[in-house]
Amino acid sequence: MEKVNLNEKFGLFSEHWTPKIVGELNGQHVKLAKLQGEFVWHKHDAEDELFFVVKGTLSMEFRDKTVTIEENEFLIVPKGVEHRPVATEEVWVMLFEPASTLNTGDAESELTKTKLDRI
Amino acid sequence: MEKVNLNEKFGLFSEHWTPKIVGELNGQHVKLAKLQGEFVWHKHDAEDELFFVVKGTLSMEFRDKTVTIEENEFLIVPKGVEHRPVATEEVWVMLFEPASTLNTGDAESELTKTKLDRI
Repeated sequence: MEKVNLNEKFGLFSEHWTPKIVGELNGQHVKLAKLQGEFVWHKHDAEDELFFVVKGTLSMEFRDKTVTIEENEFLIVPKGVEHRPVATEEVWVMLFEPASTLNTGDAESELTKTKLDRI
Repeated sequence: MEKVNLNEKFGLFSEHWTPKIVGELNGQHVKLAKLQGEFVWHKHDAEDELFFVVKGTLSMEFRDKTVTIEENEFLIVPKGVEHRPVATEEVWVMLFEPASTLNTGDAESELTKTKLDRI
């Protein structure tokens, strides 16, 4: 039973769009990711997804609006809702979602990460 | 689909040991709480519990050790493990746990909150 220090964990990697598992509880994963640029449009048919912004500003695009998430704010994207994360400058996020969640949801591509590192 | 600003939500209440629900996903609740003083020893037989410290320093006592959790750190307390949160000065925490989780676990008392507010 070890505590997790977010800044320490973020210091261990630099690549974008590659979530790292930093905790697991009740079948859910806690993940950290660095985001920069535009991701792909996708949805998760079975999983709600929480984005907590640790550093920077994340734009979460939906088909009908965009929600801007700042530091110390979070947004829950319900299952089935198409979304696209966009980060003009690098953003650090903490994610809470079921262990089954695939980063690109229903839009598998070269961005899809099927095996995530635990750090 | 509204984002949640932690500082704004923490500004809405002042009482201690009274978790407020600020999000729900995949059968889990996201809760905010202000802690000060010593809580009761308890465990959750069926639920792992995540404590993320937003402000202050939280001491999580276990029967065999104490883990000190600072700002931007989290600790996952596995189901079945006895613990007691202690906050010498006020601490603000974000909790992530199943919706079924009772704050005092197996140690029901006057501190038990069976109906939590959503803010």
